[in-house]
Amino acid sequence: MTPSVASVLGTTVPIVLAPMGGVAGGALAAAVSEAGGLGMIGVGYADADRFAAELRVARGTRVGCGFITWCLEREPRQLDLALDHDVAAVMLSFGDVERFAGRIRAAGVPLICQVPGRDEAGRALDQGAQVLVAQGGEGGGHGTRLRSTLTLVPEICDLVRERGDPVPVLAAGGVADGRGLAAVLALGAAGAVVGTRFAATAEATVSAAALERMIRARGDDTLATRVYDDVRGVNWPDGYTSRVLRSPFTDTWDKAGTGRVPVECLVEATARYRDGVRCDDPDTIVVTAGEAVGLIHRPESAATVVQVMAAEARAVIDTLHGAPV
Amino acid sequence: MTPSVASVLGTTVPIVLAPMGGVAGGALAAAVSEAGGLGMIGVGYADADRFAAELRVARGTRVGCGFITWCLEREPRQLDLALDHDVAAVMLSFGDVERFAGRIRAAGVPLICQVPGRDEAGRALDQGAQVLVAQGGEGGGHGTRLRSTLTLVPEICDLVRERGDPVPVLAAGGVADGRGLAAVLALGAAGAVVGTRFAATAEATVSAAALERMIRARGDDTLATRVYDDVRGVNWPDGYTSRVLRSPFTDTWDKAGTGRVPVECLVEATARYRDGVRCDDPDTIVVTAGEAVGLIHRPESAATVVQVMAAEARAVIDTLHGAPV
Repeated sequence: MTPSVASVLGTTVPIVLAPMGGVAGGALAAAVSEAGGLGMIGVGYADADRFAAELRVARGTRVGCGFITWCLEREPRQLDLALDHDVAAVMLSFGDVERFAGRIRAAGVPLICQVPGRDEAGRALDQGAQVLVAQGGEGGGHGTRLRSTLTLVPEICDLVRERGDPVPVLAAGGVADGRGLAAVLALGAAGAVVGTRFAATAEATVSAAALERMIRARGDDTLATRVYDDVRGVNWPDGYTSRVLRSPFTDTWDKAGTGRVPVECLVEATARYRDGVRCDDPDTIVVTAGEAVGLIHRPESAATVVQVMAAEARAVIDTLHGAPV
Repeated sequence: MTPSVASVLGTTVPIVLAPMGGVAGGALAAAVSEAGGLGMIGVGYADADRFAAELRVARGTRVGCGFITWCLEREPRQLDLALDHDVAAVMLSFGDVERFAGRIRAAGVPLICQVPGRDEAGRALDQGAQVLVAQGGEGGGHGTRLRSTLTLVPEICDLVRERGDPVPVLAAGGVADGRGLAAVLALGAAGAVVGTRFAATAEATVSAAALERMIRARGDDTLATRVYDDVRGVNWPDGYTSRVLRSPFTDTWDKAGTGRVPVECLVEATARYRDGVRCDDPDTIVVTAGEAVGLIHRPESAATVVQVMAAEARAVIDTLHGAPV
């Protein structure tokens, strides 16, 4: 018998905040948890002081946190901070969890592993993952783009069943409303990890220009690129791209369509990027967003997002139940 | 009030055979229609004689057909053949439907337009499409890979509603079982266009080696490439790739990861491809398949696929209805 997400993560609705670095801080994480989901602080590229500050913001509310595994390898003390803080769960994404899985489990903290394909799911189960997150390439931010949520979720659910591992599977990528939540539940997921929809809330730490662009964007407006990694000097391993809103900046600096800033342009592009960030220029800043951004038409509070998404999923299921297939 | 798929296409289950060129012939199309779905002959690159032969195979059963729009522009008399044959519907994919839409509608034949994004959906509605197919990049065969099914379907459903166009939306890409069908119904689709699952049936015109590879493949094993277009001399417009099973042939001839056979290798690669086809060499032949191939574990009859998919979707919905969200 697979334990429920509610029993592993302490949620009353099957909605988990994607731990978006720089966007999902203590305030957003706390708001999602207080609404019945699980809020996750996105550690991203933050240093220990900043991570500690976000943990303090959420103090008193049960929140988890998510690490970029290859970043955690460079600054492993971030995990001590999380475990000392008795976080509700730790999510590891983008890399091999072997070095950290044992300590997280020994601390009695649920280990959530986000995986982009079937092979990685098998390795995460070998390391004792207690929740798997099947991440489709339609989602915002970094990923391998190997798979889409619609096919990856049922295939990983089948893998879990075949292996006899009693582990719930969450779906990440492409869920921004109750239709998407109902859809991934139909695929066999125990719930959804939601990013972009929560990035467009009052509690997210995004700039005014970024929020405005998310609200206006359609799903066709995203792009998987490394242009912003290049100008920010973040050296992601090969095979990863980040889904963001296409912009005059990406059009200018990825002329060749390779997803990279040409080496000879890097100094100039970096200077332009920094200038743009300073004045929150909508044509220049990075706006991380998944394809589901086209389903988001207004900012909301995080609590409203959780409540409306769950209620809409319920209504969708009720309607399907009353209709013929 | 949006007309139902049943009323527009004459189906009793909301499952439409993807008109896969070279795979979905008259026998497969007839079998799907007889089981309550809508069978669609895939015209693909076929000439008029071959298309006529497939129409004869299906004679007596109500089937539709699907064209590659840019191919139809080169051989427009194929449309006369379809309309003379009083097909159940015509699906147009991959190109601007303007040249053909009026004639199809004037003939009283339902016009189904497959679209890869929101802009194309708007244009298809302008041309009088009676059914839209939202095609996600996870599907097998050709596409633009701009969007995934999970996000495209609800966004196109919203577009249809905003415009006040009473047009049902079908989902294509990533649906191979009842979980997927239930999921796209939750997204607001009126049904699913199913390819790969029907390619692995007794009635599909695929080789023994191709069938064997589909049954063994996992979802991570697909690749979006133009390698097979190159060696077959099929000159698709820019922006399209075809999702197929990765193979020693694709590994050998797309060394650079560009998705193309280098020009200087084209003669040799083409000769090797032809040799491989002659002996049905599993390492060489093209096996067109979407990511959902990882959900397919045995060949079935097309009728069984239709019946099991519909029953499984029903069961999934019933289970969700009885559980908390």
